Amino acid sequence: MSAFRWPVRVYWEDTDGAGIVYYASYLRFLERARTEWLRARGHSQQELSRERGIVFAVASLTVEYRSPARLDDELEVTCEPEPLGAASIGFAQRIYRSGPGGGTPGGGKAAPLLEANVRVACVDARTLRPQRLPSFLTEVIARETAAGG
Amino acid sequence: MSAFRWPVRVYWEDTDGAGIVYYASYLRFLERARTEWLRARGHSQQELSRERGIVFAVASLTVEYRSPARLDDELEVTCEPEPLGAASIGFAQRIYRSGPGGGTPGGGKAAPLLEANVRVACVDARTLRPQRLPSFLTEVIARETAAGG
Amino acid sequence: MSAFRWPVRVYWEDTDGAGIVYYASYLRFLERARTEWLRARGHSQQELSRERGIVFAVASLTVEYRSPARLDDELEVTCEPEPLGAASIGFAQRIYRSGPGGGTPGGGKAAPLLEANVRVACVDARTLRPQRLPSFLTEVIARETAAGG
Amino acid sequence: MSAFRWPVRVYWEDTDGAGIVYYASYLRFLERARTEWLRARGHSQQELSRERGIVFAVASLTVEYRSPARLDDELEVTCEPEPLGAASIGFAQRIYRSGPGGGTPGGGKAAPLLEANVRVACVDARTLRPQRLPSFLTEVIARETAAGG
Repeated sequence: MSAFRWPVRVYWEDTDGAGIVYYASYLRFLERARTEWLRARGHSQQELSRERGIVFAVASLTVEYRSPARLDDELEVTCEPEPLGAASIGFAQRIYRSGPGGGTPGGGKAAPLLEANVRVACVDARTLRPQRLPSFLTEVIARETAAGG
Repeated sequence: MSAFRWPVRVYWEDTDGAGIVYYASYLRFLERARTEWLRARGHSQQELSRERGIVFAVASLTVEYRSPARLDDELEVTCEPEPLGAASIGFAQRIYRSGPGGGTPGGGKAAPLLEANVRVACVDARTLRPQRLPSFLTEVIARETAAGG
Repeated sequence: MSAFRWPVRVYWEDTDGAGIVYYASYLRFLERARTEWLRARGHSQQELSRERGIVFAVASLTVEYRSPARLDDELEVTCEPEPLGAASIGFAQRIYRSGPGGGTPGGGKAAPLLEANVRVACVDARTLRPQRLPSFLTEVIARETAAGG
Repeated sequence: MSAFRWPVRVYWEDTDGAGIVYYASYLRFLERARTEWLRARGHSQQELSRERGIVFAVASLTVEYRSPARLDDELEVTCEPEPLGAASIGFAQRIYRSGPGGGTPGGGKAAPLLEANVRVACVDARTLRPQRLPSFLTEVIARETAAGG
């Protein structure tokens, strides 16, 4: 199964004085894609917080910055879940430049600008203590990781 | 009485691709100064939220951007309260460049980079409905605006 | 003529500890709409900077915050130009909640969450000195403000 | 040799709707500490960019988020360099809560809220191509890592 993809446009707010996207701004893009991955599966974080009393907190991450994005770039952020136990999810995520110039001359797939692995813990919205993932989510992950194999 | 002053250093996070401080970043600087003005009078916002159930929400603002700040600049943010009724405070705020090059050649006071007027409403932390300012705060404002006159 | 409209989704990055959108985040939303207004008229800021050596810098703004936006909200940001002389443009901008709950029960138009007026100066990309607006832009503004009358 | 330490206060701008510091905000704190580490050794990034035509770009990072920081917290960010070849530097960085409640009951050292390893590449300010580290910096790193051993 192909990865979930979410488009992101680069604005002034995302750049820094070196003329490229600031290194922390990519984390905002990665999170938008994770949130939209969840929404595409029928659930918003607002709803999970209100109705089930859970939120997701990033527990760890690794990021490889391979090539910089710039003002006005159209990016595509991918998001692929991986099972990581009863209370957390892993996401393999990549950011590509899309739009004009995003692909290779031969039409092949361009290399990602950034590769990340993000581990997200499911926690109680008030105490921030670890909670089991809701069953709909373990089922989604099982389905998507099986389909991807 | 001279205005409360709070130092702020400009980092990469504050700049944008035009090489200057991004226009929304100044609002973060203004808020730090308001928060520190309150802390210098003995109260943190965390404490006001927990113990009195109130938070402050910006209701309106005007900003004049006169001259840009840049990476590594040392700024000084001022904060002067003005009475605005039972449930809100006004703040006249300015941002100056301090450190080397911040003053005028003759040693006079440099012109501000930015001038702002910010109206802040006192609201219930949960419902966000307007609340009367706590009495310690109306007293502080009365004292400081009288002294300033 | 109806105002240009740009959709914005609220993510965690935009909220603060009071559970609502942070007051400076709205300025990021306003700028996305101005940038997309320009792009819809055929020009990107990257291109104006590279080919004409100009950038736009916010010179002043006023914002009225009427009602808070929250996580997951779908917003709509409007952008209407106003002529302001040879070297600057004014924008009247509003932010509405769209999607479910954004309108009034009777189907009428909901009140804006925020109203802003932003004056943007056209400046030299290196010296930041004022420059005349490019002619395509004065023509666009003349056309749109006439049509709006 | 003990690690370089830089104090950071948590403001509203750093928090998110879950009431804790947003995961990308910590990257801003980490960078302030790296910038101040460099400044304490006599060099600003503005100067390196202007006079030597180099800037530093983050090439990769790992972050372990162990415990959340909250509004008003006083944090301490550490920064210890590690040699990583001719064109890049590694930084081992940690964030601790300082001030009241930051230490353990017995007076011992509290556990870090966050641990990070950041690899920073020295690049040409215009082309972003890798450049050798300036000699003052390789000397600083050699001295500090020897002293730390």
